[in-house]
Amino acid sequence: MLIKRIKVTTTNAVDMIEITKLVESLVEDYPKQNGLVNVYIPHTTAGLTINEAADPDVVYDLKFAFKRISPKLREYIHNEGNSNAHFLSTLVGCSINIPFEANELLLGTWQGIFLCEFDGPRQREVIISVN
Amino acid sequence: MLIKRIKVTTTNAVDMIEITKLVESLVEDYPKQNGLVNVYIPHTTAGLTINEAADPDVVYDLKFAFKRISPKLREYIHNEGNSNAHFLSTLVGCSINIPFEANELLLGTWQGIFLCEFDGPRQREVIISVN
Amino acid sequence: MLIKRIKVTTTNAVDMIEITKLVESLVEDYPKQNGLVNVYIPHTTAGLTINEAADPDVVYDLKFAFKRISPKLREYIHNEGNSNAHFLSTLVGCSINIPFEANELLLGTWQGIFLCEFDGPRQREVIISVN
Repeated sequence: MLIKRIKVTTTNAVDMIEITKLVESLVEDYPKQNGLVNVYIPHTTAGLTINEAADPDVVYDLKFAFKRISPKLREYIHNEGNSNAHFLSTLVGCSINIPFEANELLLGTWQGIFLCEFDGPRQREVIISVN
Repeated sequence: MLIKRIKVTTTNAVDMIEITKLVESLVEDYPKQNGLVNVYIPHTTAGLTINEAADPDVVYDLKFAFKRISPKLREYIHNEGNSNAHFLSTLVGCSINIPFEANELLLGTWQGIFLCEFDGPRQREVIISVN
Repeated sequence: MLIKRIKVTTTNAVDMIEITKLVESLVEDYPKQNGLVNVYIPHTTAGLTINEAADPDVVYDLKFAFKRISPKLREYIHNEGNSNAHFLSTLVGCSINIPFEANELLLGTWQGIFLCEFDGPRQREVIISVN
């Protein structure tokens, strides 16, 4: 197994940063041709998703939808004021597996891998492991 | 590792198609008795979930809940008009792992594996890899 | 591969029970130093998530957010009256993978692993497999 940590800097409170190429490059150089890559984010107010990477308007709409579905609520008691971001992290998830074959990720034509920031801007870490 | 691609045809805008048996049959014939199967959908307006496969009323209710939680919004700018489907894809996810033991999926009594269509009807692909 | 089943008792209709130490102890004793652990819940009205385990107020807020995002709806037809719990199971997911290195889970500083109960109280099972 290969484990690689990368740093990603986000620039907005709610943000999406594409990391597809970083994951692809690890898979291309891996000694096994076929397997499963895991992408993991060790944070509780961020997440990982796969969605359309072709038209940036989709990312714009997803960021709008994130804010709409998990607003700040007066009922929240956590004193950092970012429980809406914690909830988005649970809805979106912090771990994704993608199969690869012949050293290529089996992403669909329109799919890209994105770090989702819900409480930024911050520097985040992503852990990629190839199995 | 074994990698198998299957085609699934959906018949409604929002749809759920059970694919449990297709995944089970690959695991039954696999030379390793224990492992992890990954089910992956290479689309950005569909998803994969595990939920109750016994009472079809649960599927009916889930389809209602999908439409309710992610309506079409006038604030969306993506010109294909399906950003509500992209958002459901991110909420539900495109990749699921299920452990197997003695060549049997460790699904619970009521669990079935479903392709979730959010922008159908279409023909979709699912990639099953057994590790 | 090592497969271990654990029992977890929940005490409320919507509940979160931390299971991090149970997963950590399996990884610590595993003969391979690096790999991927899968945590799987074989139920359709429960889920698994990773979120903040330091401040219990975050768990309080997440439980509030679960109830708010998926209320009981009069349009639901499933006659057990728990379709809101089935929907939360699909939103949160029933399977999580976490990489480990040098026999340690690569969880972030604030991350803990939680069983999410959406239709309790009940006794639940969790299946942990180390690969």
